[in-house]
Amino acid sequence: MRIEESDIPALARGCAVLGTGGGGDVRTGALAAARAVREHGPVPLVGLPDLDDDTLIVPLSGIGAPTVSHEMIHGEDEPRRIAAEVERLFGRPPGAVMSSEIGGSNGVAPVAWAAALGLPLLDADGMGRAFPEVQMVSMYVAGLPADLVVMSDVAGNVVTIRPVDGLWSERLARAVCVASGSSALMADYVLTAASARGAVVEGTVGRALAIGRATAGASDPLEALRQELGAVRLVTGKLTDVERRTTGGFVRGTATIEGTGADRGRTLTLELQNENLVATEDGAPLAMVPDLITVVDTETAAAIQTEGLRYGQRVTVLAWPCDPLWRTGKGLETAGPRAFGYDLEYTPVEELAEARRHG
Amino acid sequence: MRIEESDIPALARGCAVLGTGGGGDVRTGALAAARAVREHGPVPLVGLPDLDDDTLIVPLSGIGAPTVSHEMIHGEDEPRRIAAEVERLFGRPPGAVMSSEIGGSNGVAPVAWAAALGLPLLDADGMGRAFPEVQMVSMYVAGLPADLVVMSDVAGNVVTIRPVDGLWSERLARAVCVASGSSALMADYVLTAASARGAVVEGTVGRALAIGRATAGASDPLEALRQELGAVRLVTGKLTDVERRTTGGFVRGTATIEGTGADRGRTLTLELQNENLVATEDGAPLAMVPDLITVVDTETAAAIQTEGLRYGQRVTVLAWPCDPLWRTGKGLETAGPRAFGYDLEYTPVEELAEARRHG
Repeated sequence: MRIEESDIPALARGCAVLGTGGGGDVRTGALAAARAVREHGPVPLVGLPDLDDDTLIVPLSGIGAPTVSHEMIHGEDEPRRIAAEVERLFGRPPGAVMSSEIGGSNGVAPVAWAAALGLPLLDADGMGRAFPEVQMVSMYVAGLPADLVVMSDVAGNVVTIRPVDGLWSERLARAVCVASGSSALMADYVLTAASARGAVVEGTVGRALAIGRATAGASDPLEALRQELGAVRLVTGKLTDVERRTTGGFVRGTATIEGTGADRGRTLTLELQNENLVATEDGAPLAMVPDLITVVDTETAAAIQTEGLRYGQRVTVLAWPCDPLWRTGKGLETAGPRAFGYDLEYTPVEELAEARRHG
Repeated sequence: MRIEESDIPALARGCAVLGTGGGGDVRTGALAAARAVREHGPVPLVGLPDLDDDTLIVPLSGIGAPTVSHEMIHGEDEPRRIAAEVERLFGRPPGAVMSSEIGGSNGVAPVAWAAALGLPLLDADGMGRAFPEVQMVSMYVAGLPADLVVMSDVAGNVVTIRPVDGLWSERLARAVCVASGSSALMADYVLTAASARGAVVEGTVGRALAIGRATAGASDPLEALRQELGAVRLVTGKLTDVERRTTGGFVRGTATIEGTGADRGRTLTLELQNENLVATEDGAPLAMVPDLITVVDTETAAAIQTEGLRYGQRVTVLAWPCDPLWRTGKGLETAGPRAFGYDLEYTPVEELAEARRHG
């Protein structure tokens, strides 16, 4: 299939849902994608099996300081400079663009970057959701060496990092990003199609499109979305308290939702660090990272990003299982609750739900 | 000729003189150089005319934050990783090492780096002295594009920067350096022998050796040094006041020298910013950057670096002309008094001396 301009709104809605509150404002990525598709034409969406083993895949994401997700629109020069550097380093041009992070703006914007480069977009990403740090990608969890980062900024600088590991990758990329004015486009883990197998989360662009389309025209958008996601409804209610501190672009805080209707008397607390990371009720967790937790408007089922949470909103909190990769030992070590400072043993969202049903 | 272990002390003394107070403690570079020569053998010193036009020259310097000069000893891995990256980028290995900065530790340490790489050292550098900022090099003044920086740190990371200009080069290299723990080895302006002609300060390693040797066994070391440098003696006296503030590794301050003997009654003030930048008497300048101003021990003629200035020292201040490159419009714009924040019209040290003789 090809991604047409008319597909962008659905893709953006789906990426917002998969952003679990973070990943940057999808409207920014959607704007860039629509403009680029209008200018360069539709972008072919290809699967890994469609690519020759040695096809180079360039995972791209906007990086801001201090978080990966950054909604600044990058022009066409940044992806072109990165593609040129990749060609210089590998002796052949890239054959496909991949989103590093399907959640939020970085899930939609790669359509613009692929269009600008005249390349197909791979139906995959490196997270299956949104995460705030560079090393929180499937390629790292799969054990691929974090041995190359190529960055470019609005000024035109190109920086190539050969880090000794993922943590140095994060540290150096962040420093370059800050020096570049806190915004850069980044290619992390340039892959061959062969090395990408088992190291990326496949099908997530298609999934975002399906999620975005599930609610369109549905008589019960919320239920349509819940079914599409295979999600547990944690609570439906009213946002009664939002505590948010923005420290250097990083949002931390909590949101409190008091149940209404059938949920009257229940109180759910969301722990936020850009993304929604832990949902608790009476001190017991209902869902936790790396499982996905998204706050949606109860009526429209549109995802509400962390920055958009407001007192009084009528919301429903949905939670559903992450990609199995994140549930491995290395996956949980990289992006489990303890990686974010929560003293919680990871328990899958479906087990927590099952326990409540029988509890 | 070849640089033997027995040459290192003279080279270090000369580099201290050319460091005009800055450039990092030469003892650190001397230690590394002596050790490497002992292990790998003497280092051939070659001139530009000895090299084929397409021979790659790698200018190396230790970079600290916030100044270029950094006296941390880099092991053998950093130059090897940089050489490997240069070979990868250019398709052929480097053929010679050059000191980016002959003044201070960075003038001596390249002997160690050349020895570790089994390469000759080019008898040239990028300053003919010491300067604190990345863009204050002859290659920049000569108009060579600042289009490539290769850095490596103790951890083993390699970062390649393709900056759009010299100021971005400085900004990004500095950021990477800070993230690397404030110390890295850097190759700036990888040159071919052809492009180096007219863009480097030739003969400065030989000059440092000659300066270091001039005082050895001399009955009047101070006069021997003055003659070797072609320097003006600004004052001989006693250090009566040293004001120094170290802000993030950058030393700023003033030193006051009260004349003794024939200079009794005179007071000379030195403005310091890592290097000795301006010498004034009764508010009138006697010498100013980019001309070289060095404080030496009156008895031994050993250079005293800025960090070593102490109340009561018996010192003589010498000043002599910089390389003609620094007296061009671009040279003065890059490293003249105004580039350091002094509201002074640059006047060559020999003209100021001539005017005093007739004034």
